[in-house]
Amino acid sequence: MNSEFGPRHLLSDAVATATMSPIEARMLFRSGMVTPTAGWAAGYAQANLIIVPKTQAFDMLLFAQRNPKPCPILGVFDAGQTSGPLLAEGDIRTDLPRYTVYVDGEVVAEPTDISGYWRTDLVTFIVGCSFTFEAALQEGGIRIAHIDQGTNAPMYRTSIRCRPAGSISGPLVVSMRPIPASQVADAVRITSRYPAVHGAPVHVGSPAELGIADLDHPDFGDPVEIAAGEVPVFWACGVTPQAAVMESKPWLAIGQAPGHMLITDARDSSYLV
Amino acid sequence: MNSEFGPRHLLSDAVATATMSPIEARMLFRSGMVTPTAGWAAGYAQANLIIVPKTQAFDMLLFAQRNPKPCPILGVFDAGQTSGPLLAEGDIRTDLPRYTVYVDGEVVAEPTDISGYWRTDLVTFIVGCSFTFEAALQEGGIRIAHIDQGTNAPMYRTSIRCRPAGSISGPLVVSMRPIPASQVADAVRITSRYPAVHGAPVHVGSPAELGIADLDHPDFGDPVEIAAGEVPVFWACGVTPQAAVMESKPWLAIGQAPGHMLITDARDSSYLV
Repeated sequence: MNSEFGPRHLLSDAVATATMSPIEARMLFRSGMVTPTAGWAAGYAQANLIIVPKTQAFDMLLFAQRNPKPCPILGVFDAGQTSGPLLAEGDIRTDLPRYTVYVDGEVVAEPTDISGYWRTDLVTFIVGCSFTFEAALQEGGIRIAHIDQGTNAPMYRTSIRCRPAGSISGPLVVSMRPIPASQVADAVRITSRYPAVHGAPVHVGSPAELGIADLDHPDFGDPVEIAAGEVPVFWACGVTPQAAVMESKPWLAIGQAPGHMLITDARDSSYLV
Repeated sequence: MNSEFGPRHLLSDAVATATMSPIEARMLFRSGMVTPTAGWAAGYAQANLIIVPKTQAFDMLLFAQRNPKPCPILGVFDAGQTSGPLLAEGDIRTDLPRYTVYVDGEVVAEPTDISGYWRTDLVTFIVGCSFTFEAALQEGGIRIAHIDQGTNAPMYRTSIRCRPAGSISGPLVVSMRPIPASQVADAVRITSRYPAVHGAPVHVGSPAELGIADLDHPDFGDPVEIAAGEVPVFWACGVTPQAAVMESKPWLAIGQAPGHMLITDARDSSYLV
């Protein structure tokens, strides 16, 4: 369990962070504030980040295209670009609260600013995040256990392999939410309308078939309780590109730190089909 | 108007072609049959094709990612690969009825087999096609004028620019279907559920705002009549990558000939969200 996943109720001013604009939030992070971003800038899409050198960029983009449920690409910056359409007046090097830097697949740093790692050949990929469909689930009357419990969603490496692309390969990572049996169909229906942010679940029930031996020990995030009458429902997870980086070992890659997402200018609703 | 767009009712045996499997259809094309593919292998997704050298492949894939409505990528083969998941026992060089070959952006040939042009560095992109959502519209009780009239959909280069990607740029191409005013909302609702095959319309009414001066003179395909009480509805069109090739002039590119699509093994229904 990672201490970075701070409970939401400990945020100093939950109301103010929820009503903040994306650019206001990014400016705070740029000026040094470090916090998980769940609940910030409500209504705006938060996103995963994966940055690789241009020499790896075709393979990473193709990996995402071949695995659109875990890796839904919302935007790609040209090599060296530090801002773009989803990030007005932004700087991808400073505007997330915390990053994870990988060298040869190993985590070498978790800085709050990646200016020191920046290179003009780096290509930035912005990848959809389940926060968008969690808001829709809550609006649909479905409680999210990890939000109620003030933790990050439990995430698991599965035994399912992503379709490889050139030098990039890795396992499908899933997030799990316990859903009351009477609401599983609603959860499928609601999330299926957000294909750009992981869409419908990849699996309902039977964690063993995903190669998950113990739901109480997630590979990322925090365990949640599954109440009687609830079914574990699994969605493809945007941590998948980072799991692929750990396995495929490009010489350099940078992602967000878990739970410390990019807050984009896109509205959650823009990803509803 | 291109004489290749044969009226559907002239096909020698419409029933047999509709019930044919994708592989049966592809084998016929491989053995030399040349015909537009509308109405063939009903229920299976037909697709646009764009093939470029590996040196252009990242730009083309990024162009598609940045313009997902006109360029929804259903699959990408590795360089030199001639078959893949959407094409069991297939050969992309022979399994379409007719191709268009571009050199420096100019059409140099419209062969029925591209084996003579094949190179081990060619990357094949399979791009969604509106035939998939047309079937859904018809099932929803919406008549498709160009199908009723036995012609190909009218397509127009618009004044809207696609988002460029590296060396690839070009205009948004749209297809137009006249829809009764009382059914426009249904047409939007139904097609919005197929984001992988162009999705919801990009424009309803007002062709002038798309820079279309005369609906009777499409840039590709055939004109259709617009009856009283019908509204011209515009969808992003999978000819857009070929328009980008004409403008961007890669030294080699290969697409399908208009209306002579790739019949894939994927079911139309698999693209419903």
